[in-house]
Amino acid sequence: MATINENFSKLASGYLFPEIARRTALWQKQHPEASVLRLGIGNTTEALSPAVCKALHDKVDLLSHRETYSGYGDEQGDTYLREQLVSYYHQYGVDLDPTEFFVSDGAKSDAANIQEIFSKDNVVAIQDPAYPVYVDSNVVGGRTGRFNPDTLRYEGFVYLASNEENGFVPDPPKQKVDLIYLCSPNNPTGAVATTQQLKAFVDYALENKAVILFDSAYSEYITEEGYPHSIYEIENAKKCAIEINSFSKFSGFTGVRLGWTIVPKELECEDASSGVLNKMWNRRQCTFFNGASNIAQAGGYAALSGEGLRESRALVAYYMENARLIREGLTRAGLTVYGGINSPYIWAKTPNDMPSWDFFDLLLDSCHVVVTPGSGFGPSGEHYIRVSSYGHRENVEKAMQSIEENLHV
Amino acid sequence: MATINENFSKLASGYLFPEIARRTALWQKQHPEASVLRLGIGNTTEALSPAVCKALHDKVDLLSHRETYSGYGDEQGDTYLREQLVSYYHQYGVDLDPTEFFVSDGAKSDAANIQEIFSKDNVVAIQDPAYPVYVDSNVVGGRTGRFNPDTLRYEGFVYLASNEENGFVPDPPKQKVDLIYLCSPNNPTGAVATTQQLKAFVDYALENKAVILFDSAYSEYITEEGYPHSIYEIENAKKCAIEINSFSKFSGFTGVRLGWTIVPKELECEDASSGVLNKMWNRRQCTFFNGASNIAQAGGYAALSGEGLRESRALVAYYMENARLIREGLTRAGLTVYGGINSPYIWAKTPNDMPSWDFFDLLLDSCHVVVTPGSGFGPSGEHYIRVSSYGHRENVEKAMQSIEENLHV
Repeated sequence: MATINENFSKLASGYLFPEIARRTALWQKQHPEASVLRLGIGNTTEALSPAVCKALHDKVDLLSHRETYSGYGDEQGDTYLREQLVSYYHQYGVDLDPTEFFVSDGAKSDAANIQEIFSKDNVVAIQDPAYPVYVDSNVVGGRTGRFNPDTLRYEGFVYLASNEENGFVPDPPKQKVDLIYLCSPNNPTGAVATTQQLKAFVDYALENKAVILFDSAYSEYITEEGYPHSIYEIENAKKCAIEINSFSKFSGFTGVRLGWTIVPKELECEDASSGVLNKMWNRRQCTFFNGASNIAQAGGYAALSGEGLRESRALVAYYMENARLIREGLTRAGLTVYGGINSPYIWAKTPNDMPSWDFFDLLLDSCHVVVTPGSGFGPSGEHYIRVSSYGHRENVEKAMQSIEENLHV
Repeated sequence: MATINENFSKLASGYLFPEIARRTALWQKQHPEASVLRLGIGNTTEALSPAVCKALHDKVDLLSHRETYSGYGDEQGDTYLREQLVSYYHQYGVDLDPTEFFVSDGAKSDAANIQEIFSKDNVVAIQDPAYPVYVDSNVVGGRTGRFNPDTLRYEGFVYLASNEENGFVPDPPKQKVDLIYLCSPNNPTGAVATTQQLKAFVDYALENKAVILFDSAYSEYITEEGYPHSIYEIENAKKCAIEINSFSKFSGFTGVRLGWTIVPKELECEDASSGVLNKMWNRRQCTFFNGASNIAQAGGYAALSGEGLRESRALVAYYMENARLIREGLTRAGLTVYGGINSPYIWAKTPNDMPSWDFFDLLLDSCHVVVTPGSGFGPSGEHYIRVSSYGHRENVEKAMQSIEENLHV
């Protein structure tokens, strides 16, 4: 008699973005004439760059001839790409080895799967609000109790509140925790941690033999000087941190699918000396994964190289100009906004303490603009919305015009 | 104090194929002048077909213009591809709904991840020998005790021996089990289950509320009439079976990465009524996965359509001609062989009861041919080798010539 993994039933509700899609589709059905302006999901909208497209075409051409065809590659990713990633990190003064990189089909998969190499008994700290994948993967992994609908919290998690008081970057926890998910620049708040703030977490982790799971998927969106792009810019972080990053937002690979995770050889924890966690993630990937698409990997190499790198950065600059327009537009509409300077996300307070989902519905109904309700990212996200700067310029402009004209706060 | 998932330490040894690669590389280093002939890993060697390459190029072109660019798709796969898969199954008289298909980056990922939606307490039955992923994923998932190096078995698994006596297709277990991994055409033995044999497993599963995890990645290699290509050709199998398949071996997508899993709405188990398991896998994919590469999906659609489908089948026919040459060559060399008629794998007995790894080393050393030791697939694989028909024709011919000349049994 097969039985199910009961942890799935603890999951509070449908995954956030499908729920947004459902509500939007329903509203669109009721208003077929309306043109919906989408600033909800962080979904890239601009074309892949010429250098990337050339590399993708070239790889397909190689695969179309038996002399140059290749099948399975290494589960960890092609060596040429891992070596290019090593070079990429040199710009931040970070020295890593190719065997510390694990290329994957994207940061979401890695962020969700990484918990599998740790014990079920580990206590997990998450920034609140946070990308839902950190939370949901650990619920499924069995590290929580039930969801409490009154507090909007799972039993067992340690929530690190990110709020106006701390500039949306929390301090390390007061109590002992084992795994800490950190994301900087942050999704959803758009806040970016300083060197001192990251150092406080690294010191905490070293002292408590905790492991930091650092999501730097938006590192290329940092426009101001002095903020770390990689946690390994902090001394001794290799001993206590795993870093996850992606080509999705940097090079428009949301649909192409490519990311990477760094598990340093120096990384250790209570019952794993240096090297063990690197080997465990290697074994996990060799068992559960068969490598990222070789076409995507060829595109990723181009995105990090010469003209491709310049083009990737031009893509980021395009979205950051959107971010500026959104910041200014929402401010003119009377909202209080954060983020959007070192991050593609603008984190805006709802007017008059309105609940997030109500404000979501209001913006959809009165302005035809889709945003993401902050409460979908955790209890401290309540009374906020996340506005994504991913969109065509003209749509961003239309959305801001519509909000300025139709939103009365 | 972070601690590790101790189940990883139960894993018996390095994953089979990296171990083969390691031994081969070591030998090659010691014999730099020798040309190694690889019939080990089931890694495709022939070019992607023209229709597939055209579709891949066309998709890259779409992604290179902002008007036709697309980012994140549905986690479950693009609708057009899921609908094409529905049509593909009509050839077998199997009627499914697009929402029962989940497109992924490959059958290996799905075969490894599917156990996550089931309870840790389920008793798992596996064919012995079997594709190592079924075993290793359930070890990591916590469904076994220790590996016993004397019996070469994990405590807790039920091993269904596949041997000469049963034609390498075992009967359903005598005791009660909850999850049953079946693969037909079988990797590694090359055996294919008849309708009656599959029906016996379906009857068992229905009677015991067990769930069958059916791997049909080699279904297109069936050349003889009368064998089921899909488990859903068996009456009521939708109530008790999940099917996993792939574009890897059918269309040469081993490096491109694309597969699919079918979780029928009718599927149920002890504590999940119909629909629940479909929803759980949907939730799992939405949380842990972000969809397969949109480029690969465009290629997959072409591989199942019109000229592309004919070209995919021509690829299969090419490898099956290799299979015939291998069967005949090994037979001439004095080995007893099975499989290779409805499967790309030939399962050959080692001479004089030689252990599998010894015969692996002998073939490498004396014939310069790499095969896969049968014991890597489970205890009943001992005294066998798996020979893969994936290779250029000329290499297969050279390998057979070398074995016929240099192997003295």
